[in-house]
Amino acid sequence: MSEKNPVLSGSKLDQLCVNTIRTLSMDGVEAANSGHPGMPMGMADVAFVLWTKFLKHNPANPKWADRDRFILSAGHGSMLLYSLLHLTGYDLPLKELKNFRQLHSLTPGHPEFGLTPGVETTTGPLGQGFATGVGMAMAEAFLAAKFNASKTGLVDHYTYAIVSDGDLMEGISHEAASMAGHMELGKMIYLYDSNNISIDGSTDLAFTDDSRKRFEAYGWHVTEIDGHNHNEIEKAINEAKGETERPSLVICRTHIGFGSPNKQDSEASHGAPLGADEIRLTKQKLGVDPDKTFHVPDEVYTHFRKALENGAEAEKRWNSVVDEFRKSNPDEADLFDTFVNRKLPDDLSDRLPLFEPDEKGDATRNTSHTAINAIADAVPQFFGGSADLTGSTKTFMDGKGVFGPEDYTGRNVHFGVREHGMGAALNGIALHGGLIPFGATFLIFSDYCRPAIRIAALSNIPSTFVFTHDSIGLGEDGPTHQSIEQLPALRAMPNLHVFRPADANETAWAWKAAVERTDGPSLLALTRQKLPTYDRPGYAAASNTEKGAYTLLDAPSGKPELLLMATGSEVEIIMEAARELHKKGVEARVVSMPCCELFEKQPQSYRDTILPPDVKARVSIEASATLGWERYVGDGGTAIGINRFGESAPYLEVYEELGLTKERVIEESLTLLKQA
Amino acid sequence: MSEKNPVLSGSKLDQLCVNTIRTLSMDGVEAANSGHPGMPMGMADVAFVLWTKFLKHNPANPKWADRDRFILSAGHGSMLLYSLLHLTGYDLPLKELKNFRQLHSLTPGHPEFGLTPGVETTTGPLGQGFATGVGMAMAEAFLAAKFNASKTGLVDHYTYAIVSDGDLMEGISHEAASMAGHMELGKMIYLYDSNNISIDGSTDLAFTDDSRKRFEAYGWHVTEIDGHNHNEIEKAINEAKGETERPSLVICRTHIGFGSPNKQDSEASHGAPLGADEIRLTKQKLGVDPDKTFHVPDEVYTHFRKALENGAEAEKRWNSVVDEFRKSNPDEADLFDTFVNRKLPDDLSDRLPLFEPDEKGDATRNTSHTAINAIADAVPQFFGGSADLTGSTKTFMDGKGVFGPEDYTGRNVHFGVREHGMGAALNGIALHGGLIPFGATFLIFSDYCRPAIRIAALSNIPSTFVFTHDSIGLGEDGPTHQSIEQLPALRAMPNLHVFRPADANETAWAWKAAVERTDGPSLLALTRQKLPTYDRPGYAAASNTEKGAYTLLDAPSGKPELLLMATGSEVEIIMEAARELHKKGVEARVVSMPCCELFEKQPQSYRDTILPPDVKARVSIEASATLGWERYVGDGGTAIGINRFGESAPYLEVYEELGLTKERVIEESLTLLKQA
Repeated sequence: MSEKNPVLSGSKLDQLCVNTIRTLSMDGVEAANSGHPGMPMGMADVAFVLWTKFLKHNPANPKWADRDRFILSAGHGSMLLYSLLHLTGYDLPLKELKNFRQLHSLTPGHPEFGLTPGVETTTGPLGQGFATGVGMAMAEAFLAAKFNASKTGLVDHYTYAIVSDGDLMEGISHEAASMAGHMELGKMIYLYDSNNISIDGSTDLAFTDDSRKRFEAYGWHVTEIDGHNHNEIEKAINEAKGETERPSLVICRTHIGFGSPNKQDSEASHGAPLGADEIRLTKQKLGVDPDKTFHVPDEVYTHFRKALENGAEAEKRWNSVVDEFRKSNPDEADLFDTFVNRKLPDDLSDRLPLFEPDEKGDATRNTSHTAINAIADAVPQFFGGSADLTGSTKTFMDGKGVFGPEDYTGRNVHFGVREHGMGAALNGIALHGGLIPFGATFLIFSDYCRPAIRIAALSNIPSTFVFTHDSIGLGEDGPTHQSIEQLPALRAMPNLHVFRPADANETAWAWKAAVERTDGPSLLALTRQKLPTYDRPGYAAASNTEKGAYTLLDAPSGKPELLLMATGSEVEIIMEAARELHKKGVEARVVSMPCCELFEKQPQSYRDTILPPDVKARVSIEASATLGWERYVGDGGTAIGINRFGESAPYLEVYEELGLTKERVIEESLTLLKQA
Repeated sequence: MSEKNPVLSGSKLDQLCVNTIRTLSMDGVEAANSGHPGMPMGMADVAFVLWTKFLKHNPANPKWADRDRFILSAGHGSMLLYSLLHLTGYDLPLKELKNFRQLHSLTPGHPEFGLTPGVETTTGPLGQGFATGVGMAMAEAFLAAKFNASKTGLVDHYTYAIVSDGDLMEGISHEAASMAGHMELGKMIYLYDSNNISIDGSTDLAFTDDSRKRFEAYGWHVTEIDGHNHNEIEKAINEAKGETERPSLVICRTHIGFGSPNKQDSEASHGAPLGADEIRLTKQKLGVDPDKTFHVPDEVYTHFRKALENGAEAEKRWNSVVDEFRKSNPDEADLFDTFVNRKLPDDLSDRLPLFEPDEKGDATRNTSHTAINAIADAVPQFFGGSADLTGSTKTFMDGKGVFGPEDYTGRNVHFGVREHGMGAALNGIALHGGLIPFGATFLIFSDYCRPAIRIAALSNIPSTFVFTHDSIGLGEDGPTHQSIEQLPALRAMPNLHVFRPADANETAWAWKAAVERTDGPSLLALTRQKLPTYDRPGYAAASNTEKGAYTLLDAPSGKPELLLMATGSEVEIIMEAARELHKKGVEARVVSMPCCELFEKQPQSYRDTILPPDVKARVSIEASATLGWERYVGDGGTAIGINRFGESAPYLEVYEELGLTKERVIEESLTLLKQA
């Protein structure tokens, strides 16, 4: 650790630039009366060197495909990022910094992708940014391997992140770092703000890892520097860039709240405004005018905004590379466009598998496998894998290779037993652009990656989650592996499309919807057990999956007196129940509801056609907790489900034991009709 | 790695014992036609040495307080544990092994605490057992430090676990291992089944950590041995026992599916029955009769069941230590009883804080702090902390010290930024017995520890989760930190009590219910912002919290025409709305619903008293996704909530922006009454 009051390094202008980051950050937090000044002040030197000497970006076009990615994984230090974006010339005026943490500002408490130009991913929940960066670097490695052979210089950028003690304590950092080391993602450069302070006080209270040794164990290249010494920072980043086979961790020893006479090196500067008096003292100590707030000297703007010119030039150079590519290799260039611009074939629906009616049918994880392979053939940027459950989740794309140092153009990924790291990596892959990612595990383990699913939902990221073994239908593995509360828990999350297809063809259409979606994540809950494939010329078309819910089999008269509703594997139960009820003269309608969220988006008129408001006798059945089904069955209806944990036994016995049977549906239906 | 076909080591009897574990495991999986034979076969040697030469336990009394704890973190290898339990004389007859994975057997697919005698914790979801063991070792360290000074030999046992590649890949293993190393829990001895095979194939596909180096970075003592060499196993465990300041990881190089001529060292033996033919070949190779299934030679029983005699003697010795303690130090012995038997003071309710009415009131995180400190004074075994948010979650117990190597009798824990590890550690502390644990973070980060909460719910473990900053009420931190879907997602989980108290006194009663609960976890969702403290002589008593929901303020006539329902901070909104509606002559009742799960457990008559079925005009409001509220508002009602993500701004502005206001409640109420 450098001494308590280190000598300023770098030129005077450099110092003024660095201190401007500090004062903007202090002032922003003070104006909001809320926020985290300490980290931006501590990491201002590192950020300055990175952003002025290394970062390849064009503030005028934050979407330029070959830009370096920068992630502030320690998202609570958001004023650092907002300061950098403003200073380097992104469309983020000073008034937005003054409006830090205010309603409808572009500067929320934690950086949000899609809201603020230049923010590459939403951070704040610790560890997410760290792991999202791995996905970005994976995408870069894939695209570079795929296209640079045809034309050098098409894809050549780094993934930088600033990470914190908190990021490194989170479990997801282990999964992500281990994955990145294994994959030899040499173009990841992570700058670790090692300031020895967390919210509770000294990190020694809880955190005494040897982080260097830990990351070396993952196969990373690790260096350690004084995070206030510009020469050391520059040297370390250069060295990291020179290391092509290992991700780099630069441990930057810093002083949190740098410059604050009374709060530097203390948790007092971590998560609260410094206070007007302390800000005065700090500005005085830093040698800037204590009477000015949100002040940016002209020479500071001039220096930082070279980024605009440099960025425009860099992008121009890249555009000419692309232009040459288009001329020399138009087919490959078209393919490059397909990747970079997320183009899908016009005939995607036609290329989906069409499954013939089959009473015995197949597990939807199997029909999903067929769909995945069809999509993989039609969509070259379709890319994904599983968390060590490739055989069980049936997600292998035949003949598409395995992604890794031996072949970065492989499209199958072995994520390892790392559900959370996988989820965040998917987000990073999707955010990077160029690939359309999916990741698979059992539905029960959605709990292990829930925070990453939430980031996707919050940030409109089209990651697709394939969750098989989606209920008690997995049988013998028992209650630890049988999802009960996962479906309602996932449906409660805004902007997540939860598909639970009832047969092979609904599965194919669910996949189509997932791949075509661009404004948020999708999830497919799939069975281990076989389900019949319905006779689609006989019943309603599976393309209705896109409407979320539809009448699969209507009451014989077309005027239902009873609505039977189900999703996924339980549609088979209501189909069988309906056939028996029809024989008894009951006008029962079967409604398959593969995606409640899409159904809710339909016009009221459509919804009333499917679930006529005057039909009050309604029975739903789902092998899941019933929470939420009341909105469809209403006061007059019955929701059959499982409001307890499961049982370890062959699955048909578990269904019987927990009362998820055709007989129960018939009984509940007749009871309701009698009451009516 | 030892050679492909290692020479058998140990005596002939030892080998017969080890091979009996193997054959029982193969036969169990084969009979079930489902399960994981490879791991039990690979780790049979290690388990045999541990269980016959080291493990201090009494199969006749699986609850003996001073037993060593054994955790099979790789729970999929459950037949290993069931075999050991049966062979050493636990109440687990052979017929249960024959009924592996069958309905209502004591041998479910993955080990379940509370179901099978001798199973210390539920495992299967990878990493949970690993991290739960840390909690057990914490409890042991606390109790040993607390009581052994008065009388040596009261508390002196080890926490052993068998962990797998999968456990080590999961992020939670990082949090738990880092925590254990930091806390210097020297009596943890983890045996790592390093077999180079995971479900997808070779672990090299995804996992190339240097695990020795990684664990050394956490401050662990690491050794590496041939996991089939009994001498090496014995030596390594002895060495680990000799290491008192560092947890130990013994890396055991093993052959998955040991003995199977065609499936050893292959993923084919991991998760599927070997098949009758291969089992024959394996039995032949192991030198046991291929015609016998579930066969246990008499001499094997004789050898293993020495555990009964040894265990009885060990417990007897311990009982005499306790008896001496009772005589020499009766007061301390009473205290020991209080700890070990989870005794609570009879006057706990009287010792809870009683908060005076106060219109300005206080944040429930603050009144929780008062309650926590009152309970900490009344309940000496109350123990807990936070995931680096002690100041924010207000969970510090004043004057109760900090748990760690400097003082293992400290009752406050700095868990670090490790929500998942914390959750599992709480489970381990509760399962160990002797302490009543709680852990705190923000409600949004319940997502980070959800799998551990689920283990608590599934296994009836009374861990208490304190989740503050429980809604958009946290304001400026914004959507990444504002819980929206967390409450419904947690309510969907069976057997979890979700409390969201509306004021200071409800908070105190929620705490009482949590501490008194013994059959499952509780959760307190608490505010960052101030809430009024209601005039309890004027309104209904806060003790009604125990009923889950109650009429806080009734319609003036006592005959409501409108039911207003809310939880937590939104009760203030419906109280204000009701007062205005009363002025307008509307007979509105205010129902506070601090715990839906407890309300659901009340008799129908009570529930109908609070929510009279004939009153259809109902409005609920909760700063959360509305999923699930339909069951209370019904077809005729309106659920006000937030079915989108939040906003970063001062919290009152966020409430206004998202329409969670008194005015909205009044408007929706009047609309409903007009329709009626």
